[in-house]
Amino acid sequence: MRLSRYFLPILRETPKEAEIISHRLMLRAGMIRQEAAGIYAWLPLGLRVLNKVCDVVRAEQDRAGAIEILMPTIQAADLWRESGRYEAYGKEMLRLKDRHERELLYGPTAEEVVTEIFRASTRSYKDLPKNLYQISWKFRDEVRPRFGTMRSREFLMKDGYSFDIDQAAARHSYNKVFVSYLRTFERLGLRAIPMRADTGPIGGDLSHEFIILAKTGESEVFCDQAYLDMPVPPPSVDFDDVAGLQGVVDAWTSHYAATDEMHDEAVFAEVPEASRLSARGIEVGHIFYFGTKYSTPMKAVVTGPDGSERPVHMGSYGIGPSRLVAATIEASHDEAGIIWPDAIAPFDVALINLKVGDGACDTACAEIQAALETAGLSVLYDDRDERPGAKFATADLIGLPWQVIVGPKGLAEGKIELKRRASGERETLDPVDLPARIRRL
Amino acid sequence: MRLSRYFLPILRETPKEAEIISHRLMLRAGMIRQEAAGIYAWLPLGLRVLNKVCDVVRAEQDRAGAIEILMPTIQAADLWRESGRYEAYGKEMLRLKDRHERELLYGPTAEEVVTEIFRASTRSYKDLPKNLYQISWKFRDEVRPRFGTMRSREFLMKDGYSFDIDQAAARHSYNKVFVSYLRTFERLGLRAIPMRADTGPIGGDLSHEFIILAKTGESEVFCDQAYLDMPVPPPSVDFDDVAGLQGVVDAWTSHYAATDEMHDEAVFAEVPEASRLSARGIEVGHIFYFGTKYSTPMKAVVTGPDGSERPVHMGSYGIGPSRLVAATIEASHDEAGIIWPDAIAPFDVALINLKVGDGACDTACAEIQAALETAGLSVLYDDRDERPGAKFATADLIGLPWQVIVGPKGLAEGKIELKRRASGERETLDPVDLPARIRRL
Repeated sequence: MRLSRYFLPILRETPKEAEIISHRLMLRAGMIRQEAAGIYAWLPLGLRVLNKVCDVVRAEQDRAGAIEILMPTIQAADLWRESGRYEAYGKEMLRLKDRHERELLYGPTAEEVVTEIFRASTRSYKDLPKNLYQISWKFRDEVRPRFGTMRSREFLMKDGYSFDIDQAAARHSYNKVFVSYLRTFERLGLRAIPMRADTGPIGGDLSHEFIILAKTGESEVFCDQAYLDMPVPPPSVDFDDVAGLQGVVDAWTSHYAATDEMHDEAVFAEVPEASRLSARGIEVGHIFYFGTKYSTPMKAVVTGPDGSERPVHMGSYGIGPSRLVAATIEASHDEAGIIWPDAIAPFDVALINLKVGDGACDTACAEIQAALETAGLSVLYDDRDERPGAKFATADLIGLPWQVIVGPKGLAEGKIELKRRASGERETLDPVDLPARIRRL
Repeated sequence: MRLSRYFLPILRETPKEAEIISHRLMLRAGMIRQEAAGIYAWLPLGLRVLNKVCDVVRAEQDRAGAIEILMPTIQAADLWRESGRYEAYGKEMLRLKDRHERELLYGPTAEEVVTEIFRASTRSYKDLPKNLYQISWKFRDEVRPRFGTMRSREFLMKDGYSFDIDQAAARHSYNKVFVSYLRTFERLGLRAIPMRADTGPIGGDLSHEFIILAKTGESEVFCDQAYLDMPVPPPSVDFDDVAGLQGVVDAWTSHYAATDEMHDEAVFAEVPEASRLSARGIEVGHIFYFGTKYSTPMKAVVTGPDGSERPVHMGSYGIGPSRLVAATIEASHDEAGIIWPDAIAPFDVALINLKVGDGACDTACAEIQAALETAGLSVLYDDRDERPGAKFATADLIGLPWQVIVGPKGLAEGKIELKRRASGERETLDPVDLPARIRRL
């Protein structure tokens, strides 16, 4: 993509309303634009990151056997009356009426809708287990939305829902998602630590939050350092292996880890002092097992092997991709801007032409772009008529993993410069070696 | 994907509320489920088709140089007051208030939001042209929603918006989209005919609807048969070639073509009788050039080469993927069910095991599934314990392009059966030849 044809509205000044670094950087890098309080448009660069996050989330859900659906954003109030949550949910629910005065709402979550879909179609234990998920926009009318897409009113969420015949089977479904989330965050370049959590308005008796550590995190967390280098299961992990998955979950819950809310100072004191870690954390995922909380009132029942009907055991599982984009920046930036992990970088390479209009530079850049794209790498080519300083600043700000710098001096010797954004390391090389060099990492 | 692990809630009975064939078939094939009047959940099979349609739409927009963004579903009423459309839009706009009593709405379209994004960032003619598009959910509160996803209240739309310095440049942007739409529909397996259209509530003075012909179409259309085999530009078409694109558009508007609203019987009578075609049509795309209708009141201005400010010339361009899914079924089905064009089939192959539990059949099916998937084909493997008749009926109903039938008799001779859904043609072949045979088409 040529930058001259792209839409990258970089801001020169730091926006005053942005309180945290990810919000500032997303605005400055032209990733998002606020359209109303807590409501954002995703501009081209931001959308590319968001889509990459979703791709990873989706791939790991599919690997774990979950099946993708898409429920509507607008839901019927009556469905929420069946579960008893319509009145209980409070002011965070955006309630509305259509032209016929029918009560609707913008879904903040979808337990009711998915339970309705399930009960309409599934009659037998033979059709279980099922895990249905979607990646879709939700709305929660926060009283004071802030922190950009970290806590926006309209936000993207992957929400999954599992259905099982009994508690033991539901536990396995829970473990599948637990492991899929470990893999998801690892692929996103994040170390997320599962912490026992309060179940809140979703209800239920088993719940974990997945927390990443970041200096600017929203809450205090306490855990054993053992989690920092605990291995994450490989792609080949067998999600049908009940005992195997339970073993992974047991290992990942064997040490102390708690958010402020669930923290127990006395138990934490038993962790060897050298292993105790107090830090700031950001919640990036939350999973719940809540048994028959929805299936009983909503009559989502199946026939068991003995022919009798019973309500299904359910769980729900959330990851917020729009929040993850911001959380990743909180965990990965420096003074010059964002540092994208390779997996979710909007482009792999920033190609910087130091002298646009110079025949040799223009030709070399066109060839390099073609060669990199042929090698499967995505390139944002800065072909603007700007001074080098502005181009370097833009490249650092938007944080693509690699910068390829092409100038007349180097080209005279047949060389270009390659810079790794994260480390700042630079090397000089022949353009033909570039695709292999970048692929090597 | 194994059907036993999938979520495909086939309906045995034809739903009474469905008036048109696409609605009936989408419900029966477990593609969608109605959650409220005119509001649908997309179940796994339907979502796969919808995503494939979006992939094609996106690829052709990108090819034409449009840039993808994503605007929020919830918009501020004040923005629509700037353009004067807030009061004018009427009851189809879903209006709502948040907890602070601020007026919001669920976007039925996004001219105002995109104009706000543009004016906040773009100052110079040097940054033009731009075409920003999104694929996102819209809401129009139809008084009587019906026909399933053909005319739903919550619907998916690709909406694009072009910005140019003057009318001539805007015409080229319009032509780019015109040609990209021709290519899009061709790739989707549809023959769409551009027809001069009324501009309606969007406004402006140049507009075309893209209409596909289908017996069950919503409106009457009149055109010259010449359109039925007019060539569509190849992938290599140069979207920067102003004269070349104008030539394509001229050819595609050179013959008579009009919807009922714009029909002129006298002019139609001049078409040679053998070429006159009266038929039913379904609108699948609509494009508009409306000059400065939004940029003037909303002050979206850029500096021209002479240093003076002027409002930008705009156009907007819509394709409805959720409607296209239904429209494709209207154009491509038979008594047994849907017949998907290859480009948007939810899976390429229905693999039918006639005797689940038979060692030879199970092994052969597992091997065939692996071989087809390795060859890049997607497979829905019917491994359910059902009688053959039910499996054949399901395969015909959901309309995958190929059916591979594996039974003990054939296997004893080393053969399986391949059926092409569209033609009903069958052939017997060695399983190892299957991937090459299917790929050949």
